[in-house]
Amino acid sequence: MTDRQSRRAGRFTLPSEAGMEEVTIRLARRWGADAIRDSDGTTLSPELLKLGHTVYSTLCLVRADQAWAKAHRDHLQQKFLMSEPCAADGERLEMDLMAGFFREQHEIDANHDPHRWWDVMDRTTGERVPPDRWDFEAAKGTVVVRGTRPGHVYTVNFLVYQVWDSTSMYNHITNHWTGEHLMSVDPRHPETRRHLMEVLDRWLAERPHTRIVRLTSLAYQFAFIFGENRWVKFADGQCYTDPTSALAIEEFERAKGYRLTSEDFVDAGYYNNTCRVPSRAYLDWIDFVHDFVVGFGKECVEHIHRAGKQAMLFFCDHWIGTEPYSSRFAEMGFDAIVGPCLNGVELRKIAEVPAPIVKEVRLYPYFFPTGLSGEPMFKAGGDPVAECRRRWIKIRRAMLRRCPDRIGFGGYLSLAAKHPAFLDYVEHLADEFRAIRDGGGGTRPWASPFKVGILNAWGRLRSWMNREYAGGGLMECLAGLPFEVEFLSFRDVAERGVPQDVGVLVNTGDAGTAWSGGPHWTDERVVAAVRDWVRRGGGLVGVGEPTAYHEGGAFFQLADVLGVERDTGLRGLFNRIRVEPTAGHFILEDTGADVEFPHRAGSVYAPSPATSILAGTQGNILIAANTFGGGRAVYFAGFPFSWPMARLLDRALCWAAGREDQLACWRTANLLTECAAYPATGRFVVINNDAAEQRTAVRAADDRTIEVALGPFESRWFAMDATA
Amino acid sequence: MTDRQSRRAGRFTLPSEAGMEEVTIRLARRWGADAIRDSDGTTLSPELLKLGHTVYSTLCLVRADQAWAKAHRDHLQQKFLMSEPCAADGERLEMDLMAGFFREQHEIDANHDPHRWWDVMDRTTGERVPPDRWDFEAAKGTVVVRGTRPGHVYTVNFLVYQVWDSTSMYNHITNHWTGEHLMSVDPRHPETRRHLMEVLDRWLAERPHTRIVRLTSLAYQFAFIFGENRWVKFADGQCYTDPTSALAIEEFERAKGYRLTSEDFVDAGYYNNTCRVPSRAYLDWIDFVHDFVVGFGKECVEHIHRAGKQAMLFFCDHWIGTEPYSSRFAEMGFDAIVGPCLNGVELRKIAEVPAPIVKEVRLYPYFFPTGLSGEPMFKAGGDPVAECRRRWIKIRRAMLRRCPDRIGFGGYLSLAAKHPAFLDYVEHLADEFRAIRDGGGGTRPWASPFKVGILNAWGRLRSWMNREYAGGGLMECLAGLPFEVEFLSFRDVAERGVPQDVGVLVNTGDAGTAWSGGPHWTDERVVAAVRDWVRRGGGLVGVGEPTAYHEGGAFFQLADVLGVERDTGLRGLFNRIRVEPTAGHFILEDTGADVEFPHRAGSVYAPSPATSILAGTQGNILIAANTFGGGRAVYFAGFPFSWPMARLLDRALCWAAGREDQLACWRTANLLTECAAYPATGRFVVINNDAAEQRTAVRAADDRTIEVALGPFESRWFAMDATA
Repeated sequence: MTDRQSRRAGRFTLPSEAGMEEVTIRLARRWGADAIRDSDGTTLSPELLKLGHTVYSTLCLVRADQAWAKAHRDHLQQKFLMSEPCAADGERLEMDLMAGFFREQHEIDANHDPHRWWDVMDRTTGERVPPDRWDFEAAKGTVVVRGTRPGHVYTVNFLVYQVWDSTSMYNHITNHWTGEHLMSVDPRHPETRRHLMEVLDRWLAERPHTRIVRLTSLAYQFAFIFGENRWVKFADGQCYTDPTSALAIEEFERAKGYRLTSEDFVDAGYYNNTCRVPSRAYLDWIDFVHDFVVGFGKECVEHIHRAGKQAMLFFCDHWIGTEPYSSRFAEMGFDAIVGPCLNGVELRKIAEVPAPIVKEVRLYPYFFPTGLSGEPMFKAGGDPVAECRRRWIKIRRAMLRRCPDRIGFGGYLSLAAKHPAFLDYVEHLADEFRAIRDGGGGTRPWASPFKVGILNAWGRLRSWMNREYAGGGLMECLAGLPFEVEFLSFRDVAERGVPQDVGVLVNTGDAGTAWSGGPHWTDERVVAAVRDWVRRGGGLVGVGEPTAYHEGGAFFQLADVLGVERDTGLRGLFNRIRVEPTAGHFILEDTGADVEFPHRAGSVYAPSPATSILAGTQGNILIAANTFGGGRAVYFAGFPFSWPMARLLDRALCWAAGREDQLACWRTANLLTECAAYPATGRFVVINNDAAEQRTAVRAADDRTIEVALGPFESRWFAMDATA
Repeated sequence: MTDRQSRRAGRFTLPSEAGMEEVTIRLARRWGADAIRDSDGTTLSPELLKLGHTVYSTLCLVRADQAWAKAHRDHLQQKFLMSEPCAADGERLEMDLMAGFFREQHEIDANHDPHRWWDVMDRTTGERVPPDRWDFEAAKGTVVVRGTRPGHVYTVNFLVYQVWDSTSMYNHITNHWTGEHLMSVDPRHPETRRHLMEVLDRWLAERPHTRIVRLTSLAYQFAFIFGENRWVKFADGQCYTDPTSALAIEEFERAKGYRLTSEDFVDAGYYNNTCRVPSRAYLDWIDFVHDFVVGFGKECVEHIHRAGKQAMLFFCDHWIGTEPYSSRFAEMGFDAIVGPCLNGVELRKIAEVPAPIVKEVRLYPYFFPTGLSGEPMFKAGGDPVAECRRRWIKIRRAMLRRCPDRIGFGGYLSLAAKHPAFLDYVEHLADEFRAIRDGGGGTRPWASPFKVGILNAWGRLRSWMNREYAGGGLMECLAGLPFEVEFLSFRDVAERGVPQDVGVLVNTGDAGTAWSGGPHWTDERVVAAVRDWVRRGGGLVGVGEPTAYHEGGAFFQLADVLGVERDTGLRGLFNRIRVEPTAGHFILEDTGADVEFPHRAGSVYAPSPATSILAGTQGNILIAANTFGGGRAVYFAGFPFSWPMARLLDRALCWAAGREDQLACWRTANLLTECAAYPATGRFVVINNDAAEQRTAVRAADDRTIEVALGPFESRWFAMDATA
């Protein structure tokens, strides 16, 4: 099989490095690589550049010229930090601003007047301390507050410069890199921006062999703040801390007509992390930064195109402000986007970027001695094949739903080259990817006739970027199921209702988070729109604390729709109606009810006897199903990823949509196997997600059943009109 | 032993009944009964009245004259009910007001203009529907709302008359009583009040042998609302639904200067249940009702005294408004109070009523065929000895802390008489009670030199009435430990700080409840007072979600004091500091860390490495200890009752108070045993709480150790200066 498939070449990017010329030639042939790339820490030798592969070259412009950064320390990137909360024990309180932070990452900004830019907050009252009641002691790095009230807690929001670039710092600390501590400049300073364009032009001119400029990425890293223990204190791949600066705040005021305060950024120490329900000011800030980055990115791409090269965006690291799911993303003119891909959710995130450009995913493991959690990888004790396969199995099924254009790896080829079994596995994987790409022909597979809408405070902008709740598996399960998925914000639903083509809405998460929705569930437009839409035939799937906000006598605002409610401690004196678990519900037909979830014990109950309890007991419901008017709802107390959970979700979505018939269309009988059919190419594929041989039966849409036996993890293609 | 102890007689009330004269004589001798009583459903025959025992006669005045009730149906007791939430699916909505309620308990009040007294609420917006948009259809018992908005939820707050007294109804349904459905009148109507006094005088005159009038109780039953399934829908032993009436609302307005609305009572369907943080209006309402009941009770007691009899209040059933923990309780002039007593907490609740009157507890099981949950009791399959002992073991240890004056039983003596083993057990129990009473001489035992303060939204008024959190055992454990206990409200602490003699504050419960405190934790006076008090040496014990309210970047407002915080879903992107469990902490010395609690998995973590994790793991902390300035705090994720938990609590309280030395004062080495010492009588007692023989060593305050071996459940008395 390997021989036959390896003739299909291309769509594969191989990380090469100087000194590995022969290995590169050999592996490029085995893996079918048509492009080679450098990585952070590797370079391509002149010999490699002449091999005839498409050459990718990596560039992070904001840290490309350290001499400039050193000469313009006031153009380094900034942010607001919040000092550690301190309780006053008298009328004077001195706070060490950098206590708890890694002191090599940031420096306190002494250029901008603290009394104008900073805020000292009494967190016990929520009030700002008047500026005349505190002083910044620059020599000690402290703030002294006078007239504090004993027992009150104080914090300082203060501006810093970042003096060590996050990626550089991470690699020094985690991967024991040595060498210079890089600094990143902020292109919002016009002088620096002009300079970076000159750097870019020079860089382009120096690389005649480079075909693709892989920008890593544009201007601002996602939030990545280290603690004094030299380890990550706060990391949020979607958080807009890093574009903050005094200059940006002034420009924001001109653009949006109001001034942001330090507290708009610090957000009581939550730093507007993606789990927070975003405030209007924070959404405006995102929009403002996006506007700048689109302009800057457009300029970079124009320079790259002018040099006769193509521009590829790395959908990670300094991607903040690029917003690939925004309608303005296309304005920048990128030719391609590449992203790291750990699982099915990340595959969908990259593959579904709504722009007609090349999409590439970088698979794991990265060719580094250690893995993501510091575990051994390409060194003694590591098992890179197991790591790669574990991730590939999830990615593969998501690829069946939406196939990217290319795959690739990153890191030190010299490390990977020492693991023959890994080289074999990648050969197999590359062939399997190309088979998927060829089999589907880049077209969309058969999908249910209704869409699944994911409802949260972010909507489309954070498509496939939502944080998973309680077990963390609903989105991962969904990534490989035969449904088109759309991400909706509460604002979308409030203003335009539930879109016509959505059959089931999904709302998951902890109460008060952006995922569940928090105060959005007090917006009568949202509540009424969803309730009425379900009544008229819609489906709702809730996980954890869906629709949760304590108001008007309910905690789950759609408790009547969901058929379940959570007792937060105020219902203990009310008797619960006796509801016995329901046996043999449609949703459980493939799996039974034998599931365990992380959940808050003893607090979810059915307020009405009409609710069907599918798993758990009255008072500790794990899965419930309910009908509401012409619609239906399903509740899960948690949602870990597993093959039975993926099947449960498939059944729950079809049941909620009132389309049980869909379970007979392009589904497999054995839940360790899955399938996808491509009407445009007339082919379908069956995959075995398990390490053992599996027999399964595929139900085609035309009611045929095809029996298949698959080897461990095998995928096999068939013509749709053939019989097994 | 039985022979010797049974010579001590008295302090025991025996439930007798007509036809059981000989049994009464025999058991009164064996049990040492000095009083006999009737019960609901039994009468005392003339023969019994002449036996020479003190005679208690039971009277519930408000249902004493059914002819009057029938002739004055507009004087029946009232309340507001909230109709079941209904979602509108169009612009007209008809709601069946009594849907979901037991229709035989209440009747819709058609006497008072619905448009003046009722409210139709749009629960989706929280707004009242204008009265001109709805009509009451009296014939159908429905309200029709016009101009409803699809997807919005509506409810009706409506006035009802209670046409079947709660106790009468309960006994019909549960104990299959037949006969008349009794009704209760409201003595707030002056004409009815005058009539009830005449009924009382006549009743007194007809009972020359009665020495104690046992009022069951005064005017208003606690909240007890049945559902359409003929079973309890809502029951709250402390809730003030039943004194509600149109008349009361009008008098309230005159007394307090503002008008209560239906929503003040209905409270979005929570009915101001005791777990709700009470509103200012509801506290005013309690005060207003208390004022009336004190006047009414005083009048009743005066009539009883005038008849040469004594008055005893049943601290249950219609006790609402009497408030034995209020400073005005004594105004009524009761001679005694009696309460049902299931466990140690209920024992303390009755025994600590702050009035110098006789305190009696009614033990379980009640002499009924079935027990409290409908299980067999005095019939085939029942084990009344096991039931009695199970409860007595908890009650006995609480009695060592605060001894009531009397004990007794209730129900049908004829049923109990058929269980010789039960008769033996009660003989033993009565002797043991009298030994405790004699041994302590009614004085207080040795206790720690600091008080334990229970901090919640109710404070002193709900002493020993707080609902237990997550496993429900902290108060029960505390009821038998050597600490004086004081109940404090947030208002107490806000206005006067933590009392001087309190060494440890305890705050327990679910976030948002009256027990944890909800918005009281945004009161800077409370937060600052408690934090500063701990810093200066105080101790804080928190259980579940103590000090919880989401504000200012914290969920546990005293996370810094407790050393733990709960992640409600907004901290997932922040790394947790690595904190390893602490081995060998002082608090765990007797028990080890092998405990299991009901808790919300994976959400409580230590924000600082200084916290000691005693049980659980970082991120899923079950027990933690922390120092804060000169003070200390202990956190428990839950608190089930068990002997090891009682010991853990003892140790945690002493540690939190910085008084580890107290663990060497009048404590036992074996945690299945406990002791109490009475300096005033020079005696101490050691009890075995276990069904097996136990050896233990008692540490006296003077550092002596006394070795003791006790039989199953034995209690044994010693002189304090004796050696074992």
